Amino acid sequence: MQLIPLKCITIVAESILRDRLTGDLTRLGASGFTIVEARGEGSRHLRSGELPGENVRIETIVSPPVADRILQLLADEYFHDYAVIGYIADVSVIRGEKYV
Amino acid sequence: MQLIPLKCITIVAESILRDRLTGDLTRLGASGFTIVEARGEGSRHLRSGELPGENVRIETIVSPPVADRILQLLADEYFHDYAVIGYIADVSVIRGEKYV
Amino acid sequence: MQLIPLKCITIVAESILRDRLTGDLTRLGASGFTIVEARGEGSRHLRSGELPGENVRIETIVSPPVADRILQLLADEYFHDYAVIGYIADVSVIRGEKYV
Repeated sequence: MQLIPLKCITIVAESILRDRLTGDLTRLGASGFTIVEARGEGSRHLRSGELPGENVRIETIVSPPVADRILQLLADEYFHDYAVIGYIADVSVIRGEKYV
Repeated sequence: MQLIPLKCITIVAESILRDRLTGDLTRLGASGFTIVEARGEGSRHLRSGELPGENVRIETIVSPPVADRILQLLADEYFHDYAVIGYIADVSVIRGEKYV
Repeated sequence: MQLIPLKCITIVAESILRDRLTGDLTRLGASGFTIVEARGEGSRHLRSGELPGENVRIETIVSPPVADRILQLLADEYFHDYAVIGYIADVSVIRGEKYV
């Protein structure tokens, strides 16, 4: 059993963006993702990327270069218009060679 | 595109605690959170913070000092009475300046 | 309040594997887990462990030796037959002594 260090990107966005986001992720090299229905809440005086209402939480395991492309795309094409949250974390993946 | 290192706190608790928890998180400085319905299960001989039944999984991205305050509050006001799970992980966040 | 460094293992699998997986996790020493209904999607030309359709996302906080046993089991008994995703990340857990 071999573990491969990869990146886990988590995106939380309005549900209406789901298909556009997963299409973009696929185009940029993500080979799959896990989608969970979520609900966002924020403080009354919104200070950050709160997402009140129906959201999706999309998780994808990707190589570092694909992660960079995804984060860049979120910054370029989503953040101006939508309250998207995006973050990246280090994970070690079994069967990780299938993700790169 | 700039990534900012922040903390991701995940809390799993009985659903009934949701509003109290999110109220406390907001008061301590969290500007938003992602809530997912979850189900907990544990071994028959409960050894840790298992949470059988209907739970919520609350995720919030915060600065290190806010993270400390949240963890301290969980330890002080929840852990004695409830089977709450709380853990913290390092993440890098796009548009992270909005969370601090 | 004391934080204990532990491992968070996330497994995404077809929903039908849920009880088998949680039984195996318990047998290998996990004392509880958080289960979320998820949906998987992948690119049309499947390259990795995509999981289209109804899935479960199972999260468990365990000690490093239990984490090793779980990952080994996934590699030995699941990966050949199922499109299971498994990854491990470092977390710091409140009340962590209850998990080991």
